[in-house]
Amino acid sequence: MFENMGDLGKMLQGFEANAQKLKDELANKTFSVKSGGGMVELTLNGNGEVIDLNIDDELLEDKESLQILLIGAINDANKMVQQNQQQSALGMLGGMGGVK
Amino acid sequence: MFENMGDLGKMLQGFEANAQKLKDELANKTFSVKSGGGMVELTLNGNGEVIDLNIDDELLEDKESLQILLIGAINDANKMVQQNQQQSALGMLGGMGGVK
Repeated sequence: MFENMGDLGKMLQGFEANAQKLKDELANKTFSVKSGGGMVELTLNGNGEVIDLNIDDELLEDKESLQILLIGAINDANKMVQQNQQQSALGMLGGMGGVK
Repeated sequence: MFENMGDLGKMLQGFEANAQKLKDELANKTFSVKSGGGMVELTLNGNGEVIDLNIDDELLEDKESLQILLIGAINDANKMVQQNQQQSALGMLGGMGGVK
């Protein structure tokens, strides 16, 4: 599998450096998710941190709907971030030539 | 590293079975996060899915605070879920005896 453990060590070092680069790139990406026809808008970065949230004034008069729309927006946003993280990680491994 | 590729195959199969078991276990865990002294309460399962959200009526009169408290609760909850996932994954690898 590996000619010697030195090769494995080099591969792991390369992997760590690329993982940090990936995390930095993800921190600069933003994702916006809307629910309720835009009455709730949630913005996250690629690492899954919420950086903005906007709620339409009208929703403040209907707490039940507000809570449901928020739950939907958070779950949609987390899925989107996870899918992007997986694709980015696969892209990173592809760029490294993968595990030979 | 591995005596032959059959050993590696068996290890990967064991890893997949354990990862699925871990995911099932996490789905049954719940985490509750409060912000604003309990005015916002967010409940997630161990896979990071929001399963409940409760907002205090009083907060509906102060949208700015509501949005800030929600952002804080979502980010705190996501961190808690990630830390638990990492600990559970390490526990799983420990239980398997790790990579020998």
